[in-house]
Amino acid sequence: MKGFQFNGIAAGIKKNGFRDLGLIYSRVPAAAAAVFTKNQVVAAPVLLGKKQIQSGQCQAIIVNSGNANCFTGEQGMADARTMADLTARHLGILSDLVQVSSTGVIGAPLPMEKLHAKIPDLVKTMDQGTIDSFADAILTTDTFVKTATRVVSGRTGRYTVTGVAKGSGMIRPDMATMLGFVCTDALVSARDLNTCLKTACNRSFNRISVDGDTSTNDTVFCLANGLSKESVTSGEQLEQFQVALDEVCTDLARMIVRDGEGATKLVKIVVTGAASRSDAWSAAGAVAHSNLVKTAIYGQDPNWGRILAAAGRSGALVFQDRIDLHFNDICLVSNGRWLGPDIEKKAARVMKKEEFTITLDLNLGMESDFYYFCDFSEKYVTINADYRT
Amino acid sequence: MKGFQFNGIAAGIKKNGFRDLGLIYSRVPAAAAAVFTKNQVVAAPVLLGKKQIQSGQCQAIIVNSGNANCFTGEQGMADARTMADLTARHLGILSDLVQVSSTGVIGAPLPMEKLHAKIPDLVKTMDQGTIDSFADAILTTDTFVKTATRVVSGRTGRYTVTGVAKGSGMIRPDMATMLGFVCTDALVSARDLNTCLKTACNRSFNRISVDGDTSTNDTVFCLANGLSKESVTSGEQLEQFQVALDEVCTDLARMIVRDGEGATKLVKIVVTGAASRSDAWSAAGAVAHSNLVKTAIYGQDPNWGRILAAAGRSGALVFQDRIDLHFNDICLVSNGRWLGPDIEKKAARVMKKEEFTITLDLNLGMESDFYYFCDFSEKYVTINADYRT
Repeated sequence: MKGFQFNGIAAGIKKNGFRDLGLIYSRVPAAAAAVFTKNQVVAAPVLLGKKQIQSGQCQAIIVNSGNANCFTGEQGMADARTMADLTARHLGILSDLVQVSSTGVIGAPLPMEKLHAKIPDLVKTMDQGTIDSFADAILTTDTFVKTATRVVSGRTGRYTVTGVAKGSGMIRPDMATMLGFVCTDALVSARDLNTCLKTACNRSFNRISVDGDTSTNDTVFCLANGLSKESVTSGEQLEQFQVALDEVCTDLARMIVRDGEGATKLVKIVVTGAASRSDAWSAAGAVAHSNLVKTAIYGQDPNWGRILAAAGRSGALVFQDRIDLHFNDICLVSNGRWLGPDIEKKAARVMKKEEFTITLDLNLGMESDFYYFCDFSEKYVTINADYRT
Repeated sequence: MKGFQFNGIAAGIKKNGFRDLGLIYSRVPAAAAAVFTKNQVVAAPVLLGKKQIQSGQCQAIIVNSGNANCFTGEQGMADARTMADLTARHLGILSDLVQVSSTGVIGAPLPMEKLHAKIPDLVKTMDQGTIDSFADAILTTDTFVKTATRVVSGRTGRYTVTGVAKGSGMIRPDMATMLGFVCTDALVSARDLNTCLKTACNRSFNRISVDGDTSTNDTVFCLANGLSKESVTSGEQLEQFQVALDEVCTDLARMIVRDGEGATKLVKIVVTGAASRSDAWSAAGAVAHSNLVKTAIYGQDPNWGRILAAAGRSGALVFQDRIDLHFNDICLVSNGRWLGPDIEKKAARVMKKEEFTITLDLNLGMESDFYYFCDFSEKYVTINADYRT
């Protein structure tokens, strides 16, 4: 991918000494779009980011983990601005072209002396930086780095779409504690980029659930620097770009779920035959967010009653005598009736897989929707009970 | 309490041989009211109960645990009717006066041969029965029996209000897997009883959260047999009765939360200063249902950021710079600002208690609402991953 550089170093913000400061830099100012958390309570960098993105331009993103810079008041806003200013000064670009993201513990002030000391190093060592060092520097409770790439053949050459993400807890539609950064060397207008990013987020990051909480810091940025010279303007080109963006975001979203705190399985719940799209969405969400469904999946128990009960309380129109339920291709419930212990044993075998699909057919209409979610283990509790200690 | 008898025996429905069949009997037909689950997917006894309660009368309630008689189709309906018929026949009363409740595993047919064999014994041994044996027979994953009583001084004498409940998982407003049975020897019309019961449920069972799931079987019955001769008809008498009923239901609701699967703490979240009542309700619910808040409470960590973040995503109007947060009387956050590590240590001491109150003042209006909820431990996961095995 032309003209993008990534770097990640340890600045001592995380107590464990791991990488916690990352940088994305584009050789030229890039068209930029962003999607932010819908939480009304937001962190300082989100407030700053919403303002900065208005220009539709961005040349660098500075990210720290270990501290969310949230509930930090006016000092927090000043600190976020200082992070942008420091980065801009050392890169020799305008501060307005620098975006800031923070993730980690809420409520503690940013250790600014560490950022003053380390941002120069981060810029200086940029040439030796890798995308993996950046991907590593933005992690919190994640257990692996998350990157995805698609190469698209355009009219005269190729362009690349590459994404990096973090997130493993507090994940729910409208984006939870996750950060995503998608870069492309295609030439796309800020306006088209904005439309495509919203669509891609809606198809990926907004359809995942780990624990049903939404964070104060969630942000997905998308930068397009145009250096591949492949321009994306016509309807067909935009469609092609959208597909690549959707795929990159979906790859990242699935990784986030697979890395869900304490998760052992990645499950797709598909609700079909709903009377309306919003019914399909509600029913899929109720299943994906249900602690009882999640614990049953962890226990590899095809406890279909919990799935039907979740759909029943979702607000979606449901007639229990019409419901069909599949675990992959195994039909366990037909017209609301359990098909017996032999079939259930087959469904239990499906649940031993690390990834599978549950299909809930309401048989009332033509609408469908889906969610990716994970199971729920003792480890989730341990991670989140001890998070700050 | 005059004219009520309770009994509970083991009928072999539970695999462990514990009590699993209970009976409440009133010497005379009682005025009756009921509140049922709002889940669209409901068990056979709930369907039957909704029909039977139309008469406003009831003389006996037969309850089994170990099997929810849910997703059991027409056979399930026939089995629920048979339970009522058998009980009526052995008591020598009309079948229409018998209500049925079931709780336990979903989807398996009721072992009717056991009910045929044991319902006669249950009726025969009624004179030796106790309220505790009944309270014990209706339990599933509960760890203790739940009863509560109030004695009310009326105009010429006294009457009693006594309640029994079960429930420890799948608990969320609109009543989750819980059963409640409230009996009184006051003389109350079925119509007044219905109004009072709805009000009491709304103030108690609808304001608790263990895990955010709503079951298919939830029911609260209230019977008033009038045998104390104390009549409750005037406004003042009804108010007095309402207070007693509210208190009995609140006692039971709090016990259900304290017995939440794997729970170690009982927490009341009070949202005050909300712009509207529904905002207060949404914000309190978001906190009470948040897995991140629940796990932090389990870890005795005053992670106030998670509480504010939950309020922020609740849909309620929130300005983060206005929020005050108290743990009991310790103010930890004022105008959205953390008051420092010394105060936080004090808040952490509050969290060591088994019961405490979190007050979230939005400082935007005059409305308030509350929830009782519990923390979330590894044990919840273990219980629910292995429930059917």
